[in-house]
Amino acid sequence: MSEYSLFTSESVSEGHPDKIADQISDAILDAIMAEDPRARVACETMVKTGVAIISGEISTNAWVDLESIVRDVICDIGYTSSEVGFDGATCSVINIIGKQSPEINQGVDRESLEQQGAGDQGLMFGYASDETDVLMPAPITYAHRLVERQSKVRREGTLPWLRPDAKSQLTLRYGADGRPEAIDAVVLSTQHNPDITLTDLREAVIEEIIKPVLPAEWLSDQTKYFINPTGKFVIGGPVGDCGLTGRKIIVDSYGGMARHGGGAFSGKDPSKVDRSAAYAGRWVAKNIVAAGLASRCELQVSYAIGEAQPTSISLNTFGTETVAHDKIVAAVREVFDLRPFAIIRDLDLLHPIYRPTASYGHFGRDAYLLNGATAFSWEQTDRAEALKAALT
Amino acid sequence: MSEYSLFTSESVSEGHPDKIADQISDAILDAIMAEDPRARVACETMVKTGVAIISGEISTNAWVDLESIVRDVICDIGYTSSEVGFDGATCSVINIIGKQSPEINQGVDRESLEQQGAGDQGLMFGYASDETDVLMPAPITYAHRLVERQSKVRREGTLPWLRPDAKSQLTLRYGADGRPEAIDAVVLSTQHNPDITLTDLREAVIEEIIKPVLPAEWLSDQTKYFINPTGKFVIGGPVGDCGLTGRKIIVDSYGGMARHGGGAFSGKDPSKVDRSAAYAGRWVAKNIVAAGLASRCELQVSYAIGEAQPTSISLNTFGTETVAHDKIVAAVREVFDLRPFAIIRDLDLLHPIYRPTASYGHFGRDAYLLNGATAFSWEQTDRAEALKAALT
Ligand SMILES: C[S@@+](CC[C@H](N)C(=O)[O-])C[C@H]1O[C@@H](n2cnc3c(N)ncnc32)[C@H](O)[C@@H]1O
Ligand SMILES: C[S@@+](CC[C@H](N)C(=O)[O-])C[C@H]1O[C@@H](n2cnc3c(N)ncnc32)[C@H](O)[C@@H]1O
Repeated sequence: MSEYSLFTSESVSEGHPDKIADQISDAILDAIMAEDPRARVACETMVKTGVAIISGEISTNAWVDLESIVRDVICDIGYTSSEVGFDGATCSVINIIGKQSPEINQGVDRESLEQQGAGDQGLMFGYASDETDVLMPAPITYAHRLVERQSKVRREGTLPWLRPDAKSQLTLRYGADGRPEAIDAVVLSTQHNPDITLTDLREAVIEEIIKPVLPAEWLSDQTKYFINPTGKFVIGGPVGDCGLTGRKIIVDSYGGMARHGGGAFSGKDPSKVDRSAAYAGRWVAKNIVAAGLASRCELQVSYAIGEAQPTSISLNTFGTETVAHDKIVAAVREVFDLRPFAIIRDLDLLHPIYRPTASYGHFGRDAYLLNGATAFSWEQTDRAEALKAALT
Repeated sequence: MSEYSLFTSESVSEGHPDKIADQISDAILDAIMAEDPRARVACETMVKTGVAIISGEISTNAWVDLESIVRDVICDIGYTSSEVGFDGATCSVINIIGKQSPEINQGVDRESLEQQGAGDQGLMFGYASDETDVLMPAPITYAHRLVERQSKVRREGTLPWLRPDAKSQLTLRYGADGRPEAIDAVVLSTQHNPDITLTDLREAVIEEIIKPVLPAEWLSDQTKYFINPTGKFVIGGPVGDCGLTGRKIIVDSYGGMARHGGGAFSGKDPSKVDRSAAYAGRWVAKNIVAAGLASRCELQVSYAIGEAQPTSISLNTFGTETVAHDKIVAAVREVFDLRPFAIIRDLDLLHPIYRPTASYGHFGRDAYLLNGATAFSWEQTDRAEALKAALT
């Protein structure tokens, strides 16, 4: 074997400062998209002690109450008092947003909608593997479930001393067959009220967060647990750590198992290929695996700013392909149109569907109806049959 | 073949807004490290029209003139007038930096220096391949050279109409032997004075930037060029695009060819494993390839906050190993100590050596003496012999 025998991925909760920033950026995007689906939005947020700064470039004719959106996101997460470290009702909200450069715009808005140019150059990857039923790598899948569970037991009041900021990390052991077979280490740090003891916290985290979520057959007395290893985590959120949009791009995607092109998602409307082409890449890769053409698949696509056609499309099937690699590439080209216009059309991206993507991962989630459109549409395996047909 | 036949990487110049932010963060780190090597620094920067905001967490007893550092970096890059879009002398500098949380600090500063805990949880990768003589993937290597060349001809006055902001992107074609054999596409966008025509600009970019840098044998009439595809790029820097620290992590590392753990580098002192362990990962991987144990090698390492020993170390040699994979892992464990304390000691990281890393890549550069220490020490192949010895 020349591959990883251990693989580690991490996730963070919705109360992590970088995630606060991502959710603010996507809430602003959604509010604008709801009124003006063709708006150009690139919204970046910084949160630090007592302040949220919104910045970036937005061109729209919608009027939205940005200050209220920012405050609502912060309060919704659970930052509602100085005691927890941040208060959406009273923090400062600073707006230094500008407009999209007309010179970039002239590259994107071409003569016809179909020729719409990519909003930037860049490279993006899409990935899928049959390691889990959501066709995602196992380490990031379970890392997300840990922090989702933290949020659930906090919100439901099961563990009322929990506060919003948390991080999880999982080390999985892979067998010679390339399948996950055990959990080597679990790291979980969660913000908490000052009145819980470390011993009680550790026990509750194991019983109420870790055990309900991780497959029992992967846990043993070999599993190492690191629960609040610093010993104290009362100060959390933006006081302890400055948060910025786009700083959790590996948590947002495949937990490090797949390659990454570097572009962030949150705050960007789908004319930005950083977002829309990464979503399309996931859609293509997932359909390839769903069609049984490979059990692991990674797609790279790249663009030049202002150009509609990708500058490259390339595929890695890691030796797991069941059909010749070149034939899969040809089928992808036949079944999927990866011009920005076509991605936006086929995945129906001009709707306010983005805020839920900004925590617990953009991939491996179930598609559902939201604000009149399909959220996580890129998770549908609706082209698997077409791929198979294209091969014959 | 089941691997990529095309691979695309991109780079950006020192005048790109995200890189302005990275350089400000690292210049602040250097100024503090020069006076107080054990300072705790996590410095995040946002630049937008007319303003640079510095934030994050810093604990130090050094006094540094932060405002002047910010202004100097911006001016050094070439943003010295409203005409180019940004002026370091007159922009606003806003400081909202806080202190490191004492609760995080208690996890990092343990009883003895040797037991120093990791400054955060996280996963990091190191990578090397024998594709180029610097043991880096070819696409990112040449993407960097294009924007470095843009900077050179701008600064030397060869093309006096160039402005600081620029991006490059290269698509390489790989042969069946896994070696790069041709350049499929070159994308280059550069900011410019309004008085140059697009035709003249494109010709000059080809003659003075592209041809001097890219290997002639990889260029042919099949090569596609996309030079300033939007047609106009007079407005650049933070006016056209908000810049943030840590938003070019793929440009900073391996151009997407290697996996990434998601942690950013700039502005972080080496107690943060996001930076120091990624540097160590490169060092390990490069020494493995230099020792001839594999022609391609990727290492993953992970940490729990407050713990000295990594929670995992794992290796991928992509089937290119010349010695059994397990033996290489054992040799790595024998030769390299990956506790934060040991990385900082062995790579000599407590010096002001960081600002040069913040543009044109943290890896694949030559090590050299800077401010009394070795910059890019992680590029030295000084443990290759020890690795070989450990195998016998
Ligand atoms: C450790 S902080 C990053 C380093 C920080 N900028 C510094 O100055 O050291 C990263 C994340 O860890 C979590 N964190 C904050 N305080 C913590 C504590 N006392 N123990 C464990 N994790 C903590 C929060 O989720 C935070 O966003
Ligand atoms: C295209 S911008 C990102 C999108 C932007 N936030 C928006 O609102 O559309 C990304 C980078 O492209 C480069 N850029 C800016 N203006 C450009 C232009 N007119 N043509 C080509 N590239 C440009 C700059 O390096 C900039 O940082």
